[in-house]
Amino acid sequence: MRTGFEPTPRTTPTRYRERARYDRETVHQILDEALICHLGYLGAGGPVVLPTTHARLGETLYLHGSTGSGPVLAARAAPSGLPVCVTVTLVDGLVLARAAMHHSVNFRSVVVLGAARVVDDEAEKLRALAGLLDHLAAGRAADCRAPNARELAATGVLALDLVEVSAKVRTGAPEDDPEDCALPHWAGVVPLSVTAGAPVPAGDLDPAMPLPPYLARA
Amino acid sequence: MRTGFEPTPRTTPTRYRERARYDRETVHQILDEALICHLGYLGAGGPVVLPTTHARLGETLYLHGSTGSGPVLAARAAPSGLPVCVTVTLVDGLVLARAAMHHSVNFRSVVVLGAARVVDDEAEKLRALAGLLDHLAAGRAADCRAPNARELAATGVLALDLVEVSAKVRTGAPEDDPEDCALPHWAGVVPLSVTAGAPVPAGDLDPAMPLPPYLARA
Repeated sequence: MRTGFEPTPRTTPTRYRERARYDRETVHQILDEALICHLGYLGAGGPVVLPTTHARLGETLYLHGSTGSGPVLAARAAPSGLPVCVTVTLVDGLVLARAAMHHSVNFRSVVVLGAARVVDDEAEKLRALAGLLDHLAAGRAADCRAPNARELAATGVLALDLVEVSAKVRTGAPEDDPEDCALPHWAGVVPLSVTAGAPVPAGDLDPAMPLPPYLARA
Repeated sequence: MRTGFEPTPRTTPTRYRERARYDRETVHQILDEALICHLGYLGAGGPVVLPTTHARLGETLYLHGSTGSGPVLAARAAPSGLPVCVTVTLVDGLVLARAAMHHSVNFRSVVVLGAARVVDDEAEKLRALAGLLDHLAAGRAADCRAPNARELAATGVLALDLVEVSAKVRTGAPEDDPEDCALPHWAGVVPLSVTAGAPVPAGDLDPAMPLPPYLARA
């Protein structure tokens, strides 16, 4: 069992320090539950933030994109890796306080800082791509047509080791100042969650094809 | 009626150009529906991406934070505004194709590029803060205790004009290559949506306090 992440100046919040978490279990759980992340890097024209899917395998976060996409090209051009910030956020609720100032959102987020490297090792690349599929639906990588040589060549995979990492978590009720609590305004939390609807088969799918178990569970 | 956003090299995608949208209606709708955005800027130690709430008022996007927070300090220190990238993403579904390569996510995203300025004008600041509350729950700004002078002084508001903006939208079924369509793998879309649960009153709320109409609707 490895210990938690070591806080650094960049992963120590300036406010709400009690919301910061550095234990691996919390970090892993947030990364695994979130379907997408937001990848930030410095492009030629300034900061860029792109939504993309991710997968955590052990202590490494993998992202992918076309070999011609901005972040893959930028990482390829960066000899010691591309400085990035990958942020993942789950929104769990609206927090309504009596005071405007104390309104908030219940959330769980993870920020991963570091240098992303292009994965050239084929075995690692295949593992990462399988991880990305299993992140969408656990078990899917074994139940689809694997990438061929042409597709693999067209896909870039980025790896970011989980070293400089922090989570932030806000839960629970609003925190109004005592003098505001008698004000005639409703206060509380509206829980929010992501819900999966009934799967919609592709129009050209054989109607006899059963729903795979990993989707029936979802 | 203003025309759409003018594409620039930074807002023209390198791939899937057919997914790009520049019309204001699409952009506004995505910004308004998304509860949070991801704000990217170049911090002292490299790129930073932070989740935060936002509000669009006309053709300006407003964000806020403590006056001591990283982005507010950085914007205060940037005489011609802080170069930022604000990205908003709504995830609408998992797209499962027969081929690993064609898996995807249905999504709607907006990327706003530009220089964020600190709002010092008090009327604009109050309008922005009200907009942020109404973005959480439409009508809430008029139904809470307004910020006092001390709270206003502790809060920084950033404004980012909607000038260099693009949306990206993926909808619908997976797009497998014809030769893969007979493969024995389920293909289709799992719709995803954000659902609000029953509001949870604060423990110290007067039980006689009715749920406000703007929450009853949600």
